[in-house]
Amino acid sequence: MDPYSIFADIIAGRAPASRVYEDDDVLAFMDIRPLTPGHLLVVPKIPARDLGELDPEIGGKLFKVGQRLAAALRASEVACDGVNFFLADGVTAGQEVFHVHLHVIPRTPGDGFGLRARPRTPPRADLDYLAGSVRGALERGAR
Amino acid sequence: MDPYSIFADIIAGRAPASRVYEDDDVLAFMDIRPLTPGHLLVVPKIPARDLGELDPEIGGKLFKVGQRLAAALRASEVACDGVNFFLADGVTAGQEVFHVHLHVIPRTPGDGFGLRARPRTPPRADLDYLAGSVRGALERGAR
Repeated sequence: MDPYSIFADIIAGRAPASRVYEDDDVLAFMDIRPLTPGHLLVVPKIPARDLGELDPEIGGKLFKVGQRLAAALRASEVACDGVNFFLADGVTAGQEVFHVHLHVIPRTPGDGFGLRARPRTPPRADLDYLAGSVRGALERGAR
Repeated sequence: MDPYSIFADIIAGRAPASRVYEDDDVLAFMDIRPLTPGHLLVVPKIPARDLGELDPEIGGKLFKVGQRLAAALRASEVACDGVNFFLADGVTAGQEVFHVHLHVIPRTPGDGFGLRARPRTPPRADLDYLAGSVRGALERGAR
């Protein structure tokens, strides 16, 4: 897979971006195809194509910066009554740019954003079975 | 707002849950209304109704644990070709349980999960204006 992504150019200052926040590890800027007005992306400066390549310490920083940005959106001129975080890991999950990015999406009533899903109510035995399988993978050191 | 939530009972062991992961700060368990099979929730043990009440260090841990769980889902018997993280902060964002929770959602082709949205392509000047307003809120110490 091509390691290049537009985010690398934005981080390097070679591509334009409406920047909001920057520190040694993380950059945040406006999504150019916002799902709602004020939609932000938070990205690690060191490229990581997916969650498996991302240093967990940097992953933790993405969330912490997301928290600060959520507060700033509410305190800014952006219309913001609520906030969603969203992240897509892998093509099947809808990932389009292969540089990890946390979406921070300001919400207002009637903004048209939401989830499509078919929630189910499986029996407890099914939940316990899958939980046991995931615990097993953790115990085997999945990462 | 009532500080009680079902998650407090799960954390205390007073309510059933299909547990997957636990450490001093964080608990993860199966969502009882999964959007896809294997859908997990990661919650802080110390109650925090929303992102503004959540210690950012614990917020960072939610993401780090989410990364480990994403790897474990892929390595488990759960069908998982991709993973979404989702978090709702505030009623307008779809929050229903007022104890912060990070959704970790395994994905497979055709699973019916996705986003509803009306993406736009605003002019750069609009993006720059909103970015400046969010930067201003950060500089004023929004949190």
